[in-house]
Amino acid sequence: MTPVERAQMAMVLEVTAYPKPGNVDRCHDYEGTRLEHFLASAVLARPALERAAAGESGGGLGEVFREAVRLTSGHRGGNTHFGAFILLIPLLRGGDIPGAVRAVQGSTVEDALEFYRAFSETKVRMLPDDPLDVRSPRALGTIRERGLTLLGIMEHSEEHDMISREWVNGFARTRNAADLLHAAGCGREAVVEAFLRLLAEEADTFIMKEHGPLVAEEVRRRAGEVLAGREDLAAFDAGCIARGINPGSTADLIIAGIYVALGEGWEWDCSRKG
Amino acid sequence: MTPVERAQMAMVLEVTAYPKPGNVDRCHDYEGTRLEHFLASAVLARPALERAAAGESGGGLGEVFREAVRLTSGHRGGNTHFGAFILLIPLLRGGDIPGAVRAVQGSTVEDALEFYRAFSETKVRMLPDDPLDVRSPRALGTIRERGLTLLGIMEHSEEHDMISREWVNGFARTRNAADLLHAAGCGREAVVEAFLRLLAEEADTFIMKEHGPLVAEEVRRRAGEVLAGREDLAAFDAGCIARGINPGSTADLIIAGIYVALGEGWEWDCSRKG
Repeated sequence: MTPVERAQMAMVLEVTAYPKPGNVDRCHDYEGTRLEHFLASAVLARPALERAAAGESGGGLGEVFREAVRLTSGHRGGNTHFGAFILLIPLLRGGDIPGAVRAVQGSTVEDALEFYRAFSETKVRMLPDDPLDVRSPRALGTIRERGLTLLGIMEHSEEHDMISREWVNGFARTRNAADLLHAAGCGREAVVEAFLRLLAEEADTFIMKEHGPLVAEEVRRRAGEVLAGREDLAAFDAGCIARGINPGSTADLIIAGIYVALGEGWEWDCSRKG
Repeated sequence: MTPVERAQMAMVLEVTAYPKPGNVDRCHDYEGTRLEHFLASAVLARPALERAAAGESGGGLGEVFREAVRLTSGHRGGNTHFGAFILLIPLLRGGDIPGAVRAVQGSTVEDALEFYRAFSETKVRMLPDDPLDVRSPRALGTIRERGLTLLGIMEHSEEHDMISREWVNGFARTRNAADLLHAAGCGREAVVEAFLRLLAEEADTFIMKEHGPLVAEEVRRRAGEVLAGREDLAAFDAGCIARGINPGSTADLIIAGIYVALGEGWEWDCSRKG
């Protein structure tokens, strides 16, 4: 499997793992964002993923982001994989986590500008009072004035966004997600287990932005209850779906974790083993 | 969308359309053959699909088949898309149905030999008393002695195999599948409707090989009952699943139909419309 195929498989395996509380999975859609949107993204993002894997000749990280978003935003469901691309693109550029750390450290102001241009083409939310809010017409000017690189942007938003934080903390939770997959064994049951463990460890910042910190903390705690056998996963899932609670950032971390774990020999398919 | 992406999307959209009676779909697996096997095939077949689309420089049809099968047979579930590749590879080589007809007419003895080599690497069944049965050690010799091209092989098996028949009859049912999709409107509901209509028109030869002609005819008739509103689709689906009845050849025709329809402007995503 090539690195690009690993990235595509990571996107496919994450979205089809079932049941994952609150997320689109093989038996649940959200209105306007359906399983096939996620799978189409995995297929249609390929040219951008190839550019990410091609090294410097593939273009800057920001430019590659923007292309990935453009290729996968044909539908009205908003962009399904914006957070995943933030992780996968440096991972593909660098090959592995140490390489990704080097890649993000080399990011430029132009990468930041391209990222914001991509951002403004999606419905991803920042905090409403943020001077770098993408809805602000001043955002591009602010980036230029301050000479912010894309890593600088991530440093700016890491407090409220666990995906940005990966750029700052050496992809620590991506590493953790991969380790959880290795520990959980092969196949999609392992994806579900790793997802729950990751969700139980830290409140999902996507839920935090959509529903506030109390709901995010409630979901974190209940994921732990499911793991401890004190709460039913199907009921937890149904409750999240009914309230529109979607641990989207945890899903992005799992995608990055699958990408890394596949490169380290993790088996996505138990039927390939004994 | 490039032709190769159309082929990959066709494979993704077919398997995720729900509910399709008897087949693996987003809420049903078979033991050992699961949704993710089908989706992995759509991702991992790409190099072979690219070769199919590359014209003569991509290699012979038989060689491309064999690569597609090799790339997608990593798991123990058998090959998920053998029949689909028989249709997609000439469609990609020719670009559209008239081009596919020209492509299959140009097939060679070497294509036939490569096809058999690919065949022997899967679990696809032919009739047990067939002198060209892939399990026969004499099959390759027979092909050489008789100077059979791959089109000749398809002519040999068309009586009992609706996929082979497409090579012989100018991809008539692929054309029909695409027309049914256009008539049914956009999105995955249209895939389910076209699938049922195709299934109701002609008994599925994959069911025939697995369960005999009476069961195949029963499924054909009941698909018509569902379309007429006299039978419940979910109950029909559950009954097929319970009996291991899988209209696999109809699924292959739908994949080819989606490929053609996408090239003619059919919308896989209703949210892109009004």
